Amino acid sequence: MQMSEPKPKSHRPGPEYALRLDAGDELSQFREEFVVPEPDLIYLDGNSLGRLPRRTAEHLETAVSDGWGRDLIRGWNAGWYDAPSRIGDRIGRLIGAGNGQVVVSDSTSVNLFKLVMAALSLHPGRERIVSDVLNFPSDLYVLQGCIHLLGKRHRLYLAPSDDGITVDLPALLRAIDEHTALVTLSHVTFKSGFLHDAAAVTARAREVGAPVLWDLSHSVGVVPIELDGWGADMAVGCCYKYLNGGPGAPAFLYVRREWQERTRSPIWGWFGQRAPFGFDLDYEPADGIGRFLAGTPPVLSMVPLEPALDLILEAGIERIRQKSVSLTSYLVYLVDTVLAPLGFTLGTPRDAACRGSHVSIRHSEGYRINRALIEEMQVLPDFREPDNIRLGLAPLYTSFSDVWEAVNRVRCVMTEGRYRRYRQERRPVT
Amino acid sequence: MQMSEPKPKSHRPGPEYALRLDAGDELSQFREEFVVPEPDLIYLDGNSLGRLPRRTAEHLETAVSDGWGRDLIRGWNAGWYDAPSRIGDRIGRLIGAGNGQVVVSDSTSVNLFKLVMAALSLHPGRERIVSDVLNFPSDLYVLQGCIHLLGKRHRLYLAPSDDGITVDLPALLRAIDEHTALVTLSHVTFKSGFLHDAAAVTARAREVGAPVLWDLSHSVGVVPIELDGWGADMAVGCCYKYLNGGPGAPAFLYVRREWQERTRSPIWGWFGQRAPFGFDLDYEPADGIGRFLAGTPPVLSMVPLEPALDLILEAGIERIRQKSVSLTSYLVYLVDTVLAPLGFTLGTPRDAACRGSHVSIRHSEGYRINRALIEEMQVLPDFREPDNIRLGLAPLYTSFSDVWEAVNRVRCVMTEGRYRRYRQERRPVT
Repeated sequence: MQMSEPKPKSHRPGPEYALRLDAGDELSQFREEFVVPEPDLIYLDGNSLGRLPRRTAEHLETAVSDGWGRDLIRGWNAGWYDAPSRIGDRIGRLIGAGNGQVVVSDSTSVNLFKLVMAALSLHPGRERIVSDVLNFPSDLYVLQGCIHLLGKRHRLYLAPSDDGITVDLPALLRAIDEHTALVTLSHVTFKSGFLHDAAAVTARAREVGAPVLWDLSHSVGVVPIELDGWGADMAVGCCYKYLNGGPGAPAFLYVRREWQERTRSPIWGWFGQRAPFGFDLDYEPADGIGRFLAGTPPVLSMVPLEPALDLILEAGIERIRQKSVSLTSYLVYLVDTVLAPLGFTLGTPRDAACRGSHVSIRHSEGYRINRALIEEMQVLPDFREPDNIRLGLAPLYTSFSDVWEAVNRVRCVMTEGRYRRYRQERRPVT
Repeated sequence: MQMSEPKPKSHRPGPEYALRLDAGDELSQFREEFVVPEPDLIYLDGNSLGRLPRRTAEHLETAVSDGWGRDLIRGWNAGWYDAPSRIGDRIGRLIGAGNGQVVVSDSTSVNLFKLVMAALSLHPGRERIVSDVLNFPSDLYVLQGCIHLLGKRHRLYLAPSDDGITVDLPALLRAIDEHTALVTLSHVTFKSGFLHDAAAVTARAREVGAPVLWDLSHSVGVVPIELDGWGADMAVGCCYKYLNGGPGAPAFLYVRREWQERTRSPIWGWFGQRAPFGFDLDYEPADGIGRFLAGTPPVLSMVPLEPALDLILEAGIERIRQKSVSLTSYLVYLVDTVLAPLGFTLGTPRDAACRGSHVSIRHSEGYRINRALIEEMQVLPDFREPDNIRLGLAPLYTSFSDVWEAVNRVRCVMTEGRYRRYRQERRPVT
């Protein structure tokens, strides 16, 4: 893949350069595909909740009026029943997974629980679970819960991070050996945006026969992924971030074909049964990936996924990645030149090959600065403890001018001292 | 509660009597609250997927355009984050549960998994799990999965049914003793519509200290429920049947307040963590019922619940039950007088106090008859193996004339032999 990093060192940072980058943006027309009711708002939280695609709004309205309202129970035979695997296969195209290995189901946490339990059954004698300290806390919680449930036979090893930004890869690789029951990591870490070398980690795990389970929540739809090619065993991921599937859209899970008949979900629900409408009293898991389904899927939360995935597939993941690298590189440049003098440090890897599509900027007053940006400046980033303001750059609708203007507004907050009117108290914000 | 059972024995069964019953129906105006695009269609599957309320369609459209589209990530602070407990408390009003004991979350199967695992932790030395052969198969599958997961230490006792319609209550009560780790039953059984005497069963379980977990999927919204009053320990239930929450609407779960601090979910997800946005690396369960949440809830599937619940609360559960009893009693009368001569038998208890709001009629050609009703007669019931046609009567939108006309159309299918053109092969139909 070509990494086109803008090199504007000879320019004064300013809106003109951003406009030039926008003029050369092959994906610029995709912004028109999204509902943008407040054009002045700079939305930099697409890594947490992607924008609403226009076609989704129509698609969902039809699903409600014609599907639920008119077809009623017949909707199950007219597409709902097959949706978990049909949409799963479509997601497969974004994550390098051949058909029949991905389903949409439940939440990322629940899917992770299912797959961790399944993976740990493969090597009952192995005790070590390998992850890292930058993994998403909910993933670590799920692991802790599984360890508790299985009688505390396993130990959780978290590879360290010296700088809070990158994972200590040598330490991680050393921890993966013949005692390793499972390696599970976030492909892109939620706070710093660190991008793991998934091929290398997976290859190491395969050498010692340790299953690898990737959480793709912060990479799917914005970073090329090759699960089959890497030889990954399992994966989960979130559909409401760069996939633009809507708030709380159900998640997906991947189980490599060769493991499907050797593993099963710990939750024996009817949608994972071989013949759910036979209503036999004894559970027998479905053939294939369908056995990892559980209960009735949330149809109305699943419906928006198809039009949203089409958008990503139309744009093409290589072009999306290329723009993502350009956007984050431009932002890193602006952090260095505009924000560093105001006390900010970069909370994300400098090397574009080692980061996803969000950039964290750190400041001791980060929480209050973030509040000022939201309340006064029409900028929507998000805040992650203790001092990170995350700026998510979604290539389908974030422009280079957005990046410039966001940095400019951060500068305003600082030079005008606007953040000082906000308290330090925390509110729940995703 | 007054049970008003129509006693039309002196009348010829005909449409005039149904019209008289409709004229006296206090809830008849609620039909206007629902989207009915095909007025000739008699929808008798509201026990499987409730109709779309008009106000829901509007409410959802606003949630999509204003919530997701405009508020974007701010939607979490504007109502989404609190929705599981806010809607849970509203469901609590329908099931006799004081505030702080119900949340909306995941699917019924996943919630059942969580609560079965939690309940089994209360008496680790007890081995027997008590249910019945008429319970919903997915519930039995989940139990089988939990037993497997816990090392096959437990045994599952299923109280028998002599007639496939009612559960052998003496046998059930005898099985509940000081060896019982858990009693878990469907309040109304999915096929025959048998309604358990939940107060009596719960009282027996309490005598021996056995926790009771009710599955309210087929009773919530149509049968009065008093979880706190009965002294029930836990419950789960489905929101897409009589609650009209939409296809695959997330389910609910109830944990009696006194158990909340002594139990926890086996799935340690971030929405069940004490401070999910603190992003601590160690899991600590939330205080109260919130600890039974797992991952990010499916917002768009949750949004329709509030307007739908309002409808039920406006109608009042006592009036709904009264009409339900009248509807099912009228249908039983028509089965006896019109359908029995055509080879049908009743697959539902005769005693109105022992049934929910659907009536199963059984016929050796049931599958083909059901197909003919759907394909040719504009009647939508559903079929349950081996020979049950389920007729769900949803008091908010099913009229007595609907019941009359449905039976009349079944008669047509039989007298004209229409079912004979359909094959015996099965298709998945929920």
